[in-house]
Amino acid sequence: MLEPGATIGILGGGQLGRMLALAAARLGLKCHIYAPAGDNPAFDVAARHTVGAYDDEAALAAFAREVEVVTYEFENVPARAAAVLGSLRPVYPDARALETTQDRLVEKDFVRALGIETAPYVAVDDAGSLARAVAALGRPSILKTRRFGYDGKGQATIRGGADLGGVFRALGSQPCILEGLVPFRREVSVVAARGADGAFAAWDVCENEHEQHILARTVAPARLSEATAAAAIEIAHRLADALAYVGVIAVEMFLVEERGAERLVVNELAPRVHNSGHWTMDGAATSQFEQHIRAVAGWPLGSTRRIGRCEMTNLIGEQAAQWREIAADPGARLHLYGKAEIRAGRKMGHVNRVELE
Amino acid sequence: MLEPGATIGILGGGQLGRMLALAAARLGLKCHIYAPAGDNPAFDVAARHTVGAYDDEAALAAFAREVEVVTYEFENVPARAAAVLGSLRPVYPDARALETTQDRLVEKDFVRALGIETAPYVAVDDAGSLARAVAALGRPSILKTRRFGYDGKGQATIRGGADLGGVFRALGSQPCILEGLVPFRREVSVVAARGADGAFAAWDVCENEHEQHILARTVAPARLSEATAAAAIEIAHRLADALAYVGVIAVEMFLVEERGAERLVVNELAPRVHNSGHWTMDGAATSQFEQHIRAVAGWPLGSTRRIGRCEMTNLIGEQAAQWREIAADPGARLHLYGKAEIRAGRKMGHVNRVELE
Repeated sequence: MLEPGATIGILGGGQLGRMLALAAARLGLKCHIYAPAGDNPAFDVAARHTVGAYDDEAALAAFAREVEVVTYEFENVPARAAAVLGSLRPVYPDARALETTQDRLVEKDFVRALGIETAPYVAVDDAGSLARAVAALGRPSILKTRRFGYDGKGQATIRGGADLGGVFRALGSQPCILEGLVPFRREVSVVAARGADGAFAAWDVCENEHEQHILARTVAPARLSEATAAAAIEIAHRLADALAYVGVIAVEMFLVEERGAERLVVNELAPRVHNSGHWTMDGAATSQFEQHIRAVAGWPLGSTRRIGRCEMTNLIGEQAAQWREIAADPGARLHLYGKAEIRAGRKMGHVNRVELE
Repeated sequence: MLEPGATIGILGGGQLGRMLALAAARLGLKCHIYAPAGDNPAFDVAARHTVGAYDDEAALAAFAREVEVVTYEFENVPARAAAVLGSLRPVYPDARALETTQDRLVEKDFVRALGIETAPYVAVDDAGSLARAVAALGRPSILKTRRFGYDGKGQATIRGGADLGGVFRALGSQPCILEGLVPFRREVSVVAARGADGAFAAWDVCENEHEQHILARTVAPARLSEATAAAAIEIAHRLADALAYVGVIAVEMFLVEERGAERLVVNELAPRVHNSGHWTMDGAATSQFEQHIRAVAGWPLGSTRRIGRCEMTNLIGEQAAQWREIAADPGARLHLYGKAEIRAGRKMGHVNRVELE
């Protein structure tokens, strides 16, 4: 158990690192942020920071020696960086969680191996295997790079008449998977945490609306039956246990309704705090950021009790210019990330609204 | 209105400065902390800090030029420092609020001039005037230095048989006031804010328990009649208006019950966020720290709606060693200040407990 005053190392200087550092501060823990040069709003709220590349092994090692445990705000930590850090300090979530979730094929194989449903998928390594995959899964289907995708980046929808070789080249001629389309009723996610002691705690299932592949809005609780909500949380629990996971994990799922019955299809795992958990900052006894800090610090998990109906709206790009109106709305809790520049598609902040029940 | 990304300068690096900086960060505002060398936990969560003495005019001026507005976490800002800062940037609360509240005699004269009741008091400038004051106000009565008192420091109770000259010398033979004892039922406080536009918003009146002159526990709402609660808030409103105040102000009052009627006696003003407002961090729509930042940034004040019955318990000195048990209590919200060393009488953190109503 890290004592107050101890330092947690965080890879990544964006808004998730920033909100982790703010949560750690409330508990008397210090943060040291490691990130490459650029706009790193997490630096502004952390006791220390190091500007370094993720392949600068000397800088990574020096950073690790100055902290007691390492975590990160994104899953694309280079394997070599994780190895360097892991040789010096505990890294949570660990290398296995990273390896599993960095690669869409490995992730889906892992989920399926537990008997949990995913969208149908086929590995695609070249234009020829893409043609066979499309023949198997039909159109429309979605071609995704196995690595480094987020917010709709690294994916393309294959429709009738698509030039398959052209689509594959447009994604960089790299290893991909083709996913069959799931006719879902809505998208939901389970944000949960597993402690170092194996304890597990999930927040209520929430539902998510995306616009242009970017999360626009989350509402908690999600509209789904109690039994399906329990099943969703059970899926997250099994995934976390199977990874011997430590920290906050998010599991995105499709809610499918067939002949009146609800079914869950796992879409994606995120081995970190997640945008669909931002409502917990104002709508739950413990926020996902505090919970992640508690888990990686070896503290007991906090209560995930929801305190009302919650709605989180992302402020993307120019939407952040609405801050004046939001600041004047007595029902809104404004969170701005301190980014230096508004850019299209960039997450600049979010707003939580909580209705006590 | 400061825009997100702007920098607020804060004098003082203790827990109040730290919690102000954390609140500012959530709104996308940066903080620059100015404090003399020492244990300054606010440095760990601020974008910038300057180590400087409060009489280092060059350092103060350089600091002021790097921020857009200046505020502080305590009232004992030297007049000269306030003047240097004020010549370069807006300072909130302003020099008048500082001058009024830095000196117990000036403060009490100010409160009385508004027709608001205080404890009986007499100025004491030497042992002779102390004897006359004690003759007028009786024993027990309390001798307090006019300046620089807090948490019971700079005061002494005059009982029967006291060596008056000795007591005066023990307080440093400096200008004092003698206060008559108020036979109060309980101590309450109003924490409120006045915006740059003159808007006023108070949180519910809370009641305070002190142990060894240090605040131990605050409960909101206070046990008092609705009419008296409204009167308490009206007193704070009048005081804030009379000072053309900008920021959070705390007004400590005694609740006196005589023949079944409640009466309020103002004990002390604090021109800043206040320990008795810490419950607002988890128990109100807007915390006192966010509200102070909003006020000094020229933003609209946030909602002061209370979300439940709140209890704040200070962690003083060794009480902070209970952090493990508190962290494991699902009903507790732990706040630790990141101070390097536990010392007797030192405020190390606090715990909020909120019962939804």
